[in-house]
Amino acid sequence: MIRLSKLKSKLIDIDAGEPTVIMNEDDTAQMGIREMDRVHVEKHGRSIVAIVQESQTLVSPGEVGVLQAVLKTLKLVDGDKVTIRPTSRPQSIDFIKKKMDNRELTTDEIYAIVEDMSNRILSRVEISSYITAIYINGMNMRETRDLTMAMVDTGETIDFGDRDIFDFHSIGGCPGNKITPIIVPIVAASDLMIPKTFSRAISSAAGTADIMESICNVTLSSEDIKHITLEVGGVLAWGGAVRLAPVDDILIKVEYGLAIDPRSQVLASIMSKKKAVGAKHLLLDIPMGPDTKAEDEEHARAIARNFIELGEEIGINVECAITYGGQPIGRAIGPALEAQEAIAILEGEPGPRSVVEKALSLAGMILEMGGVTRNGYEEAKTILKSGRALEKFREIVEAQGGKEGITSKDAPVGKHTMEITADKSGYVNLISNRGIVKIAREAGAPYDKGAGVVIARKAGQPVEKGELIYTIYADHDRKLNAAEILGRKLKPVRVESMVMDRIPTIRRL
Amino acid sequence: MIRLSKLKSKLIDIDAGEPTVIMNEDDTAQMGIREMDRVHVEKHGRSIVAIVQESQTLVSPGEVGVLQAVLKTLKLVDGDKVTIRPTSRPQSIDFIKKKMDNRELTTDEIYAIVEDMSNRILSRVEISSYITAIYINGMNMRETRDLTMAMVDTGETIDFGDRDIFDFHSIGGCPGNKITPIIVPIVAASDLMIPKTFSRAISSAAGTADIMESICNVTLSSEDIKHITLEVGGVLAWGGAVRLAPVDDILIKVEYGLAIDPRSQVLASIMSKKKAVGAKHLLLDIPMGPDTKAEDEEHARAIARNFIELGEEIGINVECAITYGGQPIGRAIGPALEAQEAIAILEGEPGPRSVVEKALSLAGMILEMGGVTRNGYEEAKTILKSGRALEKFREIVEAQGGKEGITSKDAPVGKHTMEITADKSGYVNLISNRGIVKIAREAGAPYDKGAGVVIARKAGQPVEKGELIYTIYADHDRKLNAAEILGRKLKPVRVESMVMDRIPTIRRL
Repeated sequence: MIRLSKLKSKLIDIDAGEPTVIMNEDDTAQMGIREMDRVHVEKHGRSIVAIVQESQTLVSPGEVGVLQAVLKTLKLVDGDKVTIRPTSRPQSIDFIKKKMDNRELTTDEIYAIVEDMSNRILSRVEISSYITAIYINGMNMRETRDLTMAMVDTGETIDFGDRDIFDFHSIGGCPGNKITPIIVPIVAASDLMIPKTFSRAISSAAGTADIMESICNVTLSSEDIKHITLEVGGVLAWGGAVRLAPVDDILIKVEYGLAIDPRSQVLASIMSKKKAVGAKHLLLDIPMGPDTKAEDEEHARAIARNFIELGEEIGINVECAITYGGQPIGRAIGPALEAQEAIAILEGEPGPRSVVEKALSLAGMILEMGGVTRNGYEEAKTILKSGRALEKFREIVEAQGGKEGITSKDAPVGKHTMEITADKSGYVNLISNRGIVKIAREAGAPYDKGAGVVIARKAGQPVEKGELIYTIYADHDRKLNAAEILGRKLKPVRVESMVMDRIPTIRRL
Repeated sequence: MIRLSKLKSKLIDIDAGEPTVIMNEDDTAQMGIREMDRVHVEKHGRSIVAIVQESQTLVSPGEVGVLQAVLKTLKLVDGDKVTIRPTSRPQSIDFIKKKMDNRELTTDEIYAIVEDMSNRILSRVEISSYITAIYINGMNMRETRDLTMAMVDTGETIDFGDRDIFDFHSIGGCPGNKITPIIVPIVAASDLMIPKTFSRAISSAAGTADIMESICNVTLSSEDIKHITLEVGGVLAWGGAVRLAPVDDILIKVEYGLAIDPRSQVLASIMSKKKAVGAKHLLLDIPMGPDTKAEDEEHARAIARNFIELGEEIGINVECAITYGGQPIGRAIGPALEAQEAIAILEGEPGPRSVVEKALSLAGMILEMGGVTRNGYEEAKTILKSGRALEKFREIVEAQGGKEGITSKDAPVGKHTMEITADKSGYVNLISNRGIVKIAREAGAPYDKGAGVVIARKAGQPVEKGELIYTIYADHDRKLNAAEILGRKLKPVRVESMVMDRIPTIRRL
């Protein structure tokens, strides 16, 4: 990751997100309006509601500054005359105020808020207030259900009719979690349909979108998703390319800015995407451990209960698996490196055991949910060993424009590598999830698909001084060096002798 | 007020308030940063922290869009190369989160938030979250004190040394409240010092700034305010021209947008401005009635208690007057019309009684607070009758660049007038504060200084059909017509016969 770069500056018009006009303070005073008020902006019968910003310098009296969204809707040319007409504020602002006052919102009120966000009628200032109010005062399950369905209804949906659709979601937080490309083909090979969509990595080194993108196209339309699922049984698609519950994109930016995840909003955001692809059954993976979203069992169980309850409300049968998230899953961290490790397992490689175990257990749970078998783990193992999962994976990759008969050797891992060895003998005491992710990102992941880290020794294993502990991969030499320097500083794989420290006796007189 | 106008559109660079750069999504992905993250922007040793916005269309990879604040600080020319370097978020975001979690903020944490707002390091999205959190979770008196002092310390202050400085503030909500231009000269004529600052009308037809601006300059520097106060004893200045607690300007915009007034924030905003002008004694006018900020006595008393308590914390001796706010004060509503009515009273006009009574009572309270007399009302009346208040008012107006020896005839009231008469005989039953203000604003107030309304009959007075009930004044003929139309629709002065309605008996069989 580059932490410093030289860019060419350019003075430009900006997209404020919400439709915005800039008016001179003289004109706003004349019209009796203020900053944050709404106006209709009209030209030749076209009209848009915009939010007013004031300026004394940027526009002269009689002029109005017009930003992107307004410009496009009205098809304006510089100098065009437009009509400005004050209008009242959206009622949804009152409903946000109602939530601030800790009152339950009706179904109609929640739909009004979500629709106004979807139509960009609410500004980011107002959305920030909504997020803060929801964070503090929460929503009950009825409100959360309405929020979820409003988010579904303001976007695209994929209609699979009466068919049973299966889905899988990991709430994240654990690096190296490349189980999805193994689970989906096992499930699809059992004749269950699993149209899996996912997001890109935000703070991690590789999301499933980044892993799959290293070997095939993941930017699919909703028609593609439906078509491939019906044809092949499974799909591995980036959700960002489809307008599934698109309000989420707006909310996520504000939540990220405020560094908060309001519980009911997270529930609604995840479940609305599942509902939008027509899921009837969902398996949820909740990794538990330090640096994950569930720090202890009580917390993990509370998350599970919320998802199961919301699932009942919106017609999705949810099961949850609380999984071990104390160290990276498997050895590879980074898009192509994880693709390589996952495909090797599909090809018959017996390890890393943590990846195989987790993928088979979770795939097995889905098979049981689908009534395929009563012993899902064994069935999943049989499908994997038979090569049917590999065959199904290749069908999916081909359907998504990837190479025919793909193998683990096709994953474009970074050409520049650096081996890091132990500086003393002992046992691997700890592998820091956070440290490994930082080094992989410094090496270029997830943007550079070949970049990442492969761990040679996992926690508890013995190591001799000078033996390999991890390898850094990069697409660019200078990023490799930056990652190496960071690695030497962070020491993410800690080697300790059995005697970790020695406290000398203090002799007393 | 014009509700429709034709403006020339112009496509322009915008001032986002907070320093902002727009980066291509390719570059942000490369650098591992996201929208809402902070970066250092540097050129030739100059540096500024800016907030990142992403775009895929507005800037190409390798380019960075630079908005006003960044542009100015770095003195950039289009095409200049700048260095972008990711940096961590301001810690004040964590403190806002702490308040969301309903925990008490320390003095340092409150100062960090206010300083980051003052330096435009916090974005509007973050400020909106702060306002919402304060609205929901509140602040205790210790936090409110720190907030007030932080707002004082991030702005200009006027230092009067050991001198006793008096101040007066009306928390507003009642139209026609032109008592300040009467109170200030009475107080100053008693050798007490009263540097009165005020804001412009927001939703009303005339604030004291608008009234005074119709006859003299109110845009004074803090040096002017100090100098005139020491010289003449009183000043009537627009606070917006001086950087007294300037964070308030940023907060007010967001509060207005969200249509909320968090209690502790309102307290801090008002009291910080008083503290910044060096006030040691403050009289607070709390009008009570429908459409005012205190709807009943209990509410009014609670407001009073809060101000008195906060005053004790920051060293201001506060007294409060709960006043009648059920209908407009006096007859005139609108900048020049109110100036005219106030000057006429200073000239010896005995009415309107509601204005004279209120002004003498409140001025008298300040005289008592200053130890001038034990019978403030009588003393104020003596000063008014003697002509010393008029003389002092003229001194103030002259010192502020107004006409020498000003009289009520000098107020530039609107040339276009329209008389509205009663359409039946009866008694004036109700005068709607809101209705009168709307008509005055439609006639052009507060922007057009001559515009407004003069009420001929107040509540309880008899009126014959065809007799005058109110007159509309305007600077422009078309606004006069618009106000007349609105007046006929709203009927703000309601005339009823003594028998208001007659319910016919229903004969039962």
